[in-house]
Amino acid sequence: MQKGKRNLISDVPGVLVGHCTLSGGDVQTGVTAILPHSGDIYHEKCPAASHIINGYGKSTGLVQIDELGNIETPLILTNTLGVGDAFAACVRYMTERNPGIGRDEGTVNPVILECNDSFLNDIRGMHVKQEYVFKALEDVSDEFELGAVGAGRGMTCYGLKGGIGSASRILEAAGREYTLGALVLTNFGALQDLTVYGQYIGRKLAGVEDEPKGSCIMVIATDAPVSPRQLHRIAKRAQSGLARTGGITSGGSGEIVVAFSTANRMKTAKPVWHPSLLNDDLLTPLFRAAIETVEESIIRSMLEAETVTGRDGNKRVSLAEMIKGI
Amino acid sequence: MQKGKRNLISDVPGVLVGHCTLSGGDVQTGVTAILPHSGDIYHEKCPAASHIINGYGKSTGLVQIDELGNIETPLILTNTLGVGDAFAACVRYMTERNPGIGRDEGTVNPVILECNDSFLNDIRGMHVKQEYVFKALEDVSDEFELGAVGAGRGMTCYGLKGGIGSASRILEAAGREYTLGALVLTNFGALQDLTVYGQYIGRKLAGVEDEPKGSCIMVIATDAPVSPRQLHRIAKRAQSGLARTGGITSGGSGEIVVAFSTANRMKTAKPVWHPSLLNDDLLTPLFRAAIETVEESIIRSMLEAETVTGRDGNKRVSLAEMIKGI
Amino acid sequence: MQKGKRNLISDVPGVLVGHCTLSGGDVQTGVTAILPHSGDIYHEKCPAASHIINGYGKSTGLVQIDELGNIETPLILTNTLGVGDAFAACVRYMTERNPGIGRDEGTVNPVILECNDSFLNDIRGMHVKQEYVFKALEDVSDEFELGAVGAGRGMTCYGLKGGIGSASRILEAAGREYTLGALVLTNFGALQDLTVYGQYIGRKLAGVEDEPKGSCIMVIATDAPVSPRQLHRIAKRAQSGLARTGGITSGGSGEIVVAFSTANRMKTAKPVWHPSLLNDDLLTPLFRAAIETVEESIIRSMLEAETVTGRDGNKRVSLAEMIKGI
Amino acid sequence: MQKGKRNLISDVPGVLVGHCTLSGGDVQTGVTAILPHSGDIYHEKCPAASHIINGYGKSTGLVQIDELGNIETPLILTNTLGVGDAFAACVRYMTERNPGIGRDEGTVNPVILECNDSFLNDIRGMHVKQEYVFKALEDVSDEFELGAVGAGRGMTCYGLKGGIGSASRILEAAGREYTLGALVLTNFGALQDLTVYGQYIGRKLAGVEDEPKGSCIMVIATDAPVSPRQLHRIAKRAQSGLARTGGITSGGSGEIVVAFSTANRMKTAKPVWHPSLLNDDLLTPLFRAAIETVEESIIRSMLEAETVTGRDGNKRVSLAEMIKGI
Repeated sequence: MQKGKRNLISDVPGVLVGHCTLSGGDVQTGVTAILPHSGDIYHEKCPAASHIINGYGKSTGLVQIDELGNIETPLILTNTLGVGDAFAACVRYMTERNPGIGRDEGTVNPVILECNDSFLNDIRGMHVKQEYVFKALEDVSDEFELGAVGAGRGMTCYGLKGGIGSASRILEAAGREYTLGALVLTNFGALQDLTVYGQYIGRKLAGVEDEPKGSCIMVIATDAPVSPRQLHRIAKRAQSGLARTGGITSGGSGEIVVAFSTANRMKTAKPVWHPSLLNDDLLTPLFRAAIETVEESIIRSMLEAETVTGRDGNKRVSLAEMIKGI
Repeated sequence: MQKGKRNLISDVPGVLVGHCTLSGGDVQTGVTAILPHSGDIYHEKCPAASHIINGYGKSTGLVQIDELGNIETPLILTNTLGVGDAFAACVRYMTERNPGIGRDEGTVNPVILECNDSFLNDIRGMHVKQEYVFKALEDVSDEFELGAVGAGRGMTCYGLKGGIGSASRILEAAGREYTLGALVLTNFGALQDLTVYGQYIGRKLAGVEDEPKGSCIMVIATDAPVSPRQLHRIAKRAQSGLARTGGITSGGSGEIVVAFSTANRMKTAKPVWHPSLLNDDLLTPLFRAAIETVEESIIRSMLEAETVTGRDGNKRVSLAEMIKGI
Repeated sequence: MQKGKRNLISDVPGVLVGHCTLSGGDVQTGVTAILPHSGDIYHEKCPAASHIINGYGKSTGLVQIDELGNIETPLILTNTLGVGDAFAACVRYMTERNPGIGRDEGTVNPVILECNDSFLNDIRGMHVKQEYVFKALEDVSDEFELGAVGAGRGMTCYGLKGGIGSASRILEAAGREYTLGALVLTNFGALQDLTVYGQYIGRKLAGVEDEPKGSCIMVIATDAPVSPRQLHRIAKRAQSGLARTGGITSGGSGEIVVAFSTANRMKTAKPVWHPSLLNDDLLTPLFRAAIETVEESIIRSMLEAETVTGRDGNKRVSLAEMIKGI
Repeated sequence: MQKGKRNLISDVPGVLVGHCTLSGGDVQTGVTAILPHSGDIYHEKCPAASHIINGYGKSTGLVQIDELGNIETPLILTNTLGVGDAFAACVRYMTERNPGIGRDEGTVNPVILECNDSFLNDIRGMHVKQEYVFKALEDVSDEFELGAVGAGRGMTCYGLKGGIGSASRILEAAGREYTLGALVLTNFGALQDLTVYGQYIGRKLAGVEDEPKGSCIMVIATDAPVSPRQLHRIAKRAQSGLARTGGITSGGSGEIVVAFSTANRMKTAKPVWHPSLLNDDLLTPLFRAAIETVEESIIRSMLEAETVTGRDGNKRVSLAEMIKGI
């Protein structure tokens, strides 16, 4: 399938991404923010769905996504023990912009997604302050860095340096072109399993077999007109993209997917919605794009990550460096 | 069915409850903490399950409860916009007691449950500080107050004052006696629907018909030996208890259930567990107890609540007062 | 809420119901068929959702309903061991009308719903032949009988005679009138629990306490324009209607709900659908109608049922007769 | 990981498989039966779980598997429109062996799994008679054929001949050896996607790109002591095995997984069960085995299948033949 212009989730028109990276000594962590669109997201909610591949995770907001079929805030990615502060920051960000929240318009559903970066980062120190969430939200752009940045700063993938990855595909359905993009936060796997586009590279690089561990957050965005039910179907395909890189979604991992569409926004003031929706018979290209972008995003999260040394001198080597070594 | 000694969730041996109540002018909110047992809960996890009746809610921790079938922290109840601070406080509480968290033992899964108390409370002010969560945790006891206390301070039920309710039942299964208890945080309904043990009292008390709104958190504890799958079956019955009080689980409500057992604790260090589990054929008394205790807990949350005047002079009258009026 | 003209599920325009009743000696069983609309249902599928309250049941077709969000066949109700023959008959009914099935249009998803009528019926005899399914389908009409007819012939509810019940309500949403109707197949409960519109009648009628058993199938239809996700929300409220009659959804019961809308039919040939959908904020009247119609349908299934004596002289007395007795 | 002695699901002690193959002209179909153990399965039920990857399928019995966490019948695989007759046959098989069914022991939950073989088989003819189900059940053995046999006779995989595949792995957990085996019924995919152990073979073999279609049934058995919740976790990994062969679980596919354990059988007469259960931290080898066996089973279903010409002269070539061609 054809890649989007930037090969990033921001190829989906309106989607923006920002980072705040903390990197110094034992503190190797950060925040990544995804803005589904630049408008008033609280009053023009995006159709959305979540999917749990393995639920060893602490992400918030998924219950309401599945009940109401939408997201109404930016998506915030950070480390596991930072979820509370990220939640509070997201509340503040939304209440500042919406005087009706907590008064005459109900409350708000922050979507906070996380992985455990404790190998490289002093996660017990709870270094993700609310101001860093605001910084990531101010930083949003359709151009953004991949690798050891933002929430990806302290993450480990297949025993090497992981972090933030992204990719996009162009597809056709019902006579029109649409874009589907993925953004992943990678923090899983054991080196011997790493498979790069069919090549069992991990087996060559690995010494002793290691126990696969950790988590992967996968966010999928599209401008194709699909319902929450259809987005759930798309989200379920993310596992196949992850599997192509060799991931076995081990016992201790939190593999969580959130998918949203920027089409058919749900305007809260409207008593009746008139969405356009693709026939389910036409979803296969979206499934294929979800698999391909998740696979490529995971590989890119590693290829674009630099080597990082963090807490207690713990070190994760970049894949690019490793490959050069052979 | 026979009630427990105190008719409280703490009739389940080991379960303790504490409150921290904030009440002054526009600030009418608080925190309620439930300790599943007094031991090392992180290393002796309780089998657990969650159930979403209506997912318009922001509770955290449910994903991991369902994947791993256990809880490993106290349960914290508070207002919706306080979830972030309660999460952070719960992380601190757990990391202080467990040096391995975030180092060599993975992270921790805080279970934070919430309702929206914005009618009586200045919820936008985010008055639930982390210290109040600690206070509620220090306050735990097998004796505790019901009504307009703790997380229930600012809640509204059937148009009157709601809050914290609890009840318990004794049951027999496989030749032994067990206890099942419920604790609820009530914040839902419209007055015309209120039904008290079969009496359509709401119809008599209500003037104009009102739109039912809001949420209800229901926690169920038992010392009966049941698996996470069986706890999920028990949790699903909570809806029937709520329905008996007239509740219709309206569109804007977050009705969330968490059920746990204090039997068959999952010791993390053990490679093989040897639980005793009731045959599914024997669960009906547990289902009945769940329905009865949730029904009674909801009614008690109202009967024991005093009238509260809060934000901008908003007022919720106590049911006890209303009944005296007729 | 206001009842529909007939107070039957067939008040939803287009919905038709037919029975085939087998009653003679040990054979007390039958088939009930629900036609969602009179057109080409395979090519104009109805949006639909299912919900499992308690999954001790053998209904078929629910997996695909939830994946694709629609039904494409009549709904067939019968006894548990007749599901296979009903499935085969439904396949025949559909292939006769659709030459493309099993050739160039995929297969077909029969929705067969069941309860266990073995107390009154010789269920092991497998007396539900395929021809009886065809008879029920030929019998469909907007007028149909309730009580000990069709699939309800051999069923037992709250220890008395159960069977087929139905009810409907008129509601308003977004400035228009809609109808919601329910049809139930009742086969559950113990007499002491029976509650009729708030009256604990069962306690008065029952001698010794009995163990509640059995199942309940609940079908909900509406012409309101709602999506599969919204239909799932409506379906979940059926439990509250059942609970109001005293039901505790005991361990051995199969409580299954299927909800469908006759609006926004999904035409298979169309690449893009343009449904109109109610805002979720407007669903509360539909929730209330679902609860009220399920409650009333269950009571009517009993009130309209005659006393039946069946297998080995087993007998279930009608509620009407019992009430006359007091 | 090490393969089992036969590299078949029957390496799990007690698991037996039998086929009945119909092959003549337009009739290319059949039945495959899996016996979880040779004892009284109705009274010694196996812990089990199901998982829906894509629910475009008509399998029966999954609802009760998930509620009660067990299977109580053989698993029957056949073609989609034969599900009704297979259900009826399974009922007969069970009632013949259990006089209590439909009298004083409740009913029975047939698990029937299916794919659509209409390309090679005259599926509209409904040629799967009940006697063929009995024949497959009589044929069970720990040695059985793979490829174009039994339910696999008419199936198509990656545009070539599919059918029945199987594989097994030996693993260690808590100091003991266990076996995990898979059996698959393959009927999905487009040739260009076929990937054999990392080799993109499909791209070389395929001419024009084809639309992937169809379904895959995956059955996983193990003698490791795991609970229904843990079996669900194992079942979810099947998607990763399928993905490694290139499958994208397209829109029109029914990918269904059933996993069961032969350990900790649930004896219906016992009021309390005393299972031994592996700690969740030890499940990763089971996850890996599930992925590897599903991957290998799919490839074997193709490698062992002969070329078949069926309905209207439609033909599916065997992969072995295709590979020889290059």
